[in-house]
Amino acid sequence: MTETQVTLIQIDNYGPWTVAPEPKREADLQMLQSRLYADLSQLVGHHDGYVFSTRYDNMIAVTNGLDLAEHRRIQDAVRNRYPVTVSLGVATGASPRDAIGEATATLQAAGSAQDGERTEILRGDPLREGGAVQIAHFDVNDATGRYTDELDAFEVFRRIDRGYTTLLEYMYDSHDSLSFFIGGDNVISVTADLDRPAFEEAIDHVAETAGIDLKVGVGRGRTAGDAGMVAKEALERCREHGTRVEIGAGERTEGT
Amino acid sequence: MTETQVTLIQIDNYGPWTVAPEPKREADLQMLQSRLYADLSQLVGHHDGYVFSTRYDNMIAVTNGLDLAEHRRIQDAVRNRYPVTVSLGVATGASPRDAIGEATATLQAAGSAQDGERTEILRGDPLREGGAVQIAHFDVNDATGRYTDELDAFEVFRRIDRGYTTLLEYMYDSHDSLSFFIGGDNVISVTADLDRPAFEEAIDHVAETAGIDLKVGVGRGRTAGDAGMVAKEALERCREHGTRVEIGAGERTEGT
Amino acid sequence: MTETQVTLIQIDNYGPWTVAPEPKREADLQMLQSRLYADLSQLVGHHDGYVFSTRYDNMIAVTNGLDLAEHRRIQDAVRNRYPVTVSLGVATGASPRDAIGEATATLQAAGSAQDGERTEILRGDPLREGGAVQIAHFDVNDATGRYTDELDAFEVFRRIDRGYTTLLEYMYDSHDSLSFFIGGDNVISVTADLDRPAFEEAIDHVAETAGIDLKVGVGRGRTAGDAGMVAKEALERCREHGTRVEIGAGERTEGT
Amino acid sequence: MTETQVTLIQIDNYGPWTVAPEPKREADLQMLQSRLYADLSQLVGHHDGYVFSTRYDNMIAVTNGLDLAEHRRIQDAVRNRYPVTVSLGVATGASPRDAIGEATATLQAAGSAQDGERTEILRGDPLREGGAVQIAHFDVNDATGRYTDELDAFEVFRRIDRGYTTLLEYMYDSHDSLSFFIGGDNVISVTADLDRPAFEEAIDHVAETAGIDLKVGVGRGRTAGDAGMVAKEALERCREHGTRVEIGAGERTEGT
Repeated sequence: MTETQVTLIQIDNYGPWTVAPEPKREADLQMLQSRLYADLSQLVGHHDGYVFSTRYDNMIAVTNGLDLAEHRRIQDAVRNRYPVTVSLGVATGASPRDAIGEATATLQAAGSAQDGERTEILRGDPLREGGAVQIAHFDVNDATGRYTDELDAFEVFRRIDRGYTTLLEYMYDSHDSLSFFIGGDNVISVTADLDRPAFEEAIDHVAETAGIDLKVGVGRGRTAGDAGMVAKEALERCREHGTRVEIGAGERTEGT
Repeated sequence: MTETQVTLIQIDNYGPWTVAPEPKREADLQMLQSRLYADLSQLVGHHDGYVFSTRYDNMIAVTNGLDLAEHRRIQDAVRNRYPVTVSLGVATGASPRDAIGEATATLQAAGSAQDGERTEILRGDPLREGGAVQIAHFDVNDATGRYTDELDAFEVFRRIDRGYTTLLEYMYDSHDSLSFFIGGDNVISVTADLDRPAFEEAIDHVAETAGIDLKVGVGRGRTAGDAGMVAKEALERCREHGTRVEIGAGERTEGT
Repeated sequence: MTETQVTLIQIDNYGPWTVAPEPKREADLQMLQSRLYADLSQLVGHHDGYVFSTRYDNMIAVTNGLDLAEHRRIQDAVRNRYPVTVSLGVATGASPRDAIGEATATLQAAGSAQDGERTEILRGDPLREGGAVQIAHFDVNDATGRYTDELDAFEVFRRIDRGYTTLLEYMYDSHDSLSFFIGGDNVISVTADLDRPAFEEAIDHVAETAGIDLKVGVGRGRTAGDAGMVAKEALERCREHGTRVEIGAGERTEGT
Repeated sequence: MTETQVTLIQIDNYGPWTVAPEPKREADLQMLQSRLYADLSQLVGHHDGYVFSTRYDNMIAVTNGLDLAEHRRIQDAVRNRYPVTVSLGVATGASPRDAIGEATATLQAAGSAQDGERTEILRGDPLREGGAVQIAHFDVNDATGRYTDELDAFEVFRRIDRGYTTLLEYMYDSHDSLSFFIGGDNVISVTADLDRPAFEEAIDHVAETAGIDLKVGVGRGRTAGDAGMVAKEALERCREHGTRVEIGAGERTEGT
């Protein structure tokens, strides 16, 4: 059984900051957001967690294995490097959807995201030990040959986005899973104990609804990094064997 | 009349690199992609251009005002800072859609994005002078009060994504415009001489189709940065006056 | 007794890279070097180690607590983020001088720093457990009042540099210690079981030879980060009490 | 005749920030300082200026070609990316020493570097046009063969530091020049109309006093970047021809 620990990372009072005393240059905002995301990716990644950029001012991380002291250290690192601070809500759940629900509620209970007094909240209840994560790594079949080398770059983007949005909605509604576009033609779903038929149906659904052909590698592990690496290796097997769904055998238990 | 110069920025042979000799850790890839995007944002931003992260391995930039020598300097900077290189295709068009079409074609003519021999291409025909850009900066009405502080963080993301996708499709199909989610509840559309009714219809369409209420500030300028700043100031006026569409008066002609 | 683990971090074949096919822009090189140092600072800092920028193409780190697998992960991270790679030599010694001697020898045995074939070496013999580090954190008395606010910025720099160079030579020759300027008016010495009189003599020597008045906080710990934080706290006590040497009591054994 | 424009970049009230409310982790401070320096290198480098890291909390830049508006934009960029701000003093002089003297005085007149109220000062009088910079780029003869591959890494560093300090003092006292170690075995001197014999004497002095053999390439240009690139190319000619001093012919007038 999976038990996913999720952290909501919210930039404190960010909207008002972007326009005070007057609107900041967009290039500066984009740089701030991407650098902050890159840093969080590294900070959380050090403990084999994953962060997804999501809306950039609200990011969602899978943090199995990180306790509150490690979360505090990440919060300190942000304050010491950036002109903004972050609040963190941590929760676990049998499904990723439950976990993000509770992680959000815990922050909301502390005040509004745009309350200038509500800064650097750290709340929640990390797993004492154990827990397990299931990660599904999807990509588009022959995206370069069919799309990137054939259509214009925005048209390709639009189709990938359409496939992603279709998958996101399906996995959320049908399986309480959280899906994130991670660049190129890749989507990661944080799932809970789904089996092969569930993934086959998801792929069928996206093909029928959005006309995009996917394949997927699936992994489990004690951390997102471990599960994600098993999933990537399984996806490589899809490429080699021409299969649509490969599920990693065994569980990977340490980062390498 | 607008004349938009667009640059397609494509990481050379990126997909194979991410899995050779074996799949790289996802946190490392996310860091690379975000840092590269942050750097490109600064490099292009120095000349008052905008870059959109798009698919990360394929990014779209609005580069009015940058000549080929400046593009070459950006290409050199990437090679000197990263383990990957980029190819650049530059084109202009009356509509942004035309421009990205031609910019893509110019790169595709040089070979496949996954051809290991096709690296650091720089092709295209920048504007000798002039040109003008129209930028529309959309955001969601009271996103914090209605969504961020009320719903769970993934549910909010999903609704914002749905609104964005609806807007993207509409602006592309109806107006040959390119729209990009830039974080929070913000979307930028690169448009071509659209007038107030066109924006009102777009907002109506998204409200009806996706149930998301938008407002928009619109600006024109000789560069994306200039047009974008006028658009941001117009959007502030929407906030102050409770209006849905504000169009910046005059044209801004220098970065500040 | 201290047992210091030191890692020599050497950029592979860096000199030739900076001038091939023609000299690279200095601003690009400075950026590469500083970013690489910043990243190594974070990567090693995650395990409570310290990295000193030293010559930038050759950096010296105190790495008690990092095993070979963690060194390998740092090496991988550099390769996945930069256009250059690094070789690492690890050694321990009763004195920091012995340790860096052996760490260097271990890399030199693998070939020249400018041998294009000798890349990504990782050699050495990390401590299985234990070890202890002594860190001395020096700064200049009232540097802002006496220097920064009074003399021109280069003259201040020159005096700080003179004080630093005098301290570096003395600590190396008399105490087999490695000293590094870390910005502002701060110098860190990695030392081995030195007592109060040794630090008092060092301060006297710098005052007499270079005319610079120093104070120092000293700490011990199982890692550089732990020892360094004790040293910083001791230095704060020097400030509060007007003393010249404060030695942290006890040993700090975990990062916070 | 040269006319060098120099900017003193001072982090506002930095010392107190590093220890409040309690001492910050050294790895975090090192990261902040290096990243800030890297960014300043890029921001100033965009206009073909050079920044030297100097003491990190006080940096010295050669900024011929940058007006006050461009300085303001750099100041804004720092505030929008970092938890600290910077003050800037700009001045020009026939010698670099005169210029930094006046640039410092202009900031000191605004208050102490550790006055929490004195933030984001921007003062000075940039050149309206013209000006010219002379850059001398020194390195150590066969540093890899004689030192890096032979001695221990700290011993090499110590010798390079000794040579650098000797050169710094000599160039400052004899020629009102500002010299900076820029990594590896490289030193850049910002000089004023020095001729071949002056450089030969400097090299002789360092050889006699510190036992380090240098060579130097010298360039002039309208900006530091232009002069520095001519100097690098001249230094390459020293390598090819086994000469000690090469002075670039002509003047380079545009960044490439």
